[in-house]
Amino acid sequence: MFTGMAIIGLSVTLFHTQPVAAQTERSMAVFTPDGKLELPKGYRRWVFVGAPLTPNGLNNGKAGFPEYHHVYVEARNVDAYLKTGSFPEGTVIVKELTRVLNPTFPDGSRNEPSGRGFFNGEFNGIDATVKDSKRFPKTNGWGFFTFGHHPLPYAETAAESSVDECAGCHIANVAKTDMTWVQFYPILRGK
Amino acid sequence: MFTGMAIIGLSVTLFHTQPVAAQTERSMAVFTPDGKLELPKGYRRWVFVGAPLTPNGLNNGKAGFPEYHHVYVEARNVDAYLKTGSFPEGTVIVKELTRVLNPTFPDGSRNEPSGRGFFNGEFNGIDATVKDSKRFPKTNGWGFFTFGHHPLPYAETAAESSVDECAGCHIANVAKTDMTWVQFYPILRGK
Repeated sequence: MFTGMAIIGLSVTLFHTQPVAAQTERSMAVFTPDGKLELPKGYRRWVFVGAPLTPNGLNNGKAGFPEYHHVYVEARNVDAYLKTGSFPEGTVIVKELTRVLNPTFPDGSRNEPSGRGFFNGEFNGIDATVKDSKRFPKTNGWGFFTFGHHPLPYAETAAESSVDECAGCHIANVAKTDMTWVQFYPILRGK
Repeated sequence: MFTGMAIIGLSVTLFHTQPVAAQTERSMAVFTPDGKLELPKGYRRWVFVGAPLTPNGLNNGKAGFPEYHHVYVEARNVDAYLKTGSFPEGTVIVKELTRVLNPTFPDGSRNEPSGRGFFNGEFNGIDATVKDSKRFPKTNGWGFFTFGHHPLPYAETAAESSVDECAGCHIANVAKTDMTWVQFYPILRGK
């Protein structure tokens, strides 16, 4: 009888700390023993914050990020940013790229019933940033990683990108907004 | 003692059937007594499926949908579509528009450190579709609504749009994919 009650008590505690839906949302950064970041999982169900688009057709055929950038942040980290103006330790921000869909104009656009414009084509790569002040003290507390700018499958792990490749541009332009381009993300902008 | 156990049992049941995160995700369509749809809530935390972009600058200054279209579907309805190829009764699909951010080129684009392209400006309206075969039998089971194409605040309620305004184009172009432009949404495309 006493044992039975203890088990019921444990069940209550488990539901309270790990509700089912929250488990699927949560995904702390996972590092390999040699410091590589494992490919984030589940990010397509995080909160979408914005879709910058830099078409190859407007960038001499070689956009630095080809071409749509879909940016995702977990809900609890969005909430924290909206409350405090900075992201919690452990925050992961994922930018998944897609190509534009079958361009028919030189700029990358095409005509569809909704008008002339750009539409999402195939997936084309992932970049991720991780906030971990102890691990990345030299780049304002954030580490930068790329799993390739190419169609699926993406790399399984990624070593930290050099300052020249990623962090330098964030430090130069968005150090005041926790290293993140919130000016392009309507739900975060202006916080 | 017996009462105490009953209360514990009830707590377990509540957590099991209504986990906290799922409650915030769920949002059935709500209609007023005269058949208007209430403005959907919480959609910015649904699953983002794609961002078509029809800039005013590429559409004689008057895009039908100005300008980014951010499209959101609830997770359970995405799952159902991926499994069955059609959306469940009650599915709501929201398309939230944003303008492009401060254009400096005639096409609506601007230069940023990531390249020349388009970036999300201010929110600019909401359209929604609701699958309800009994309520909308004449338009393949879907109702179409717009809460305005303008900056916040959006309309609180919307009457069903006419066939000419919305459903007609969906019937003509995407009747075979449950009235939805899945060809522009990478995670749904090809199902």
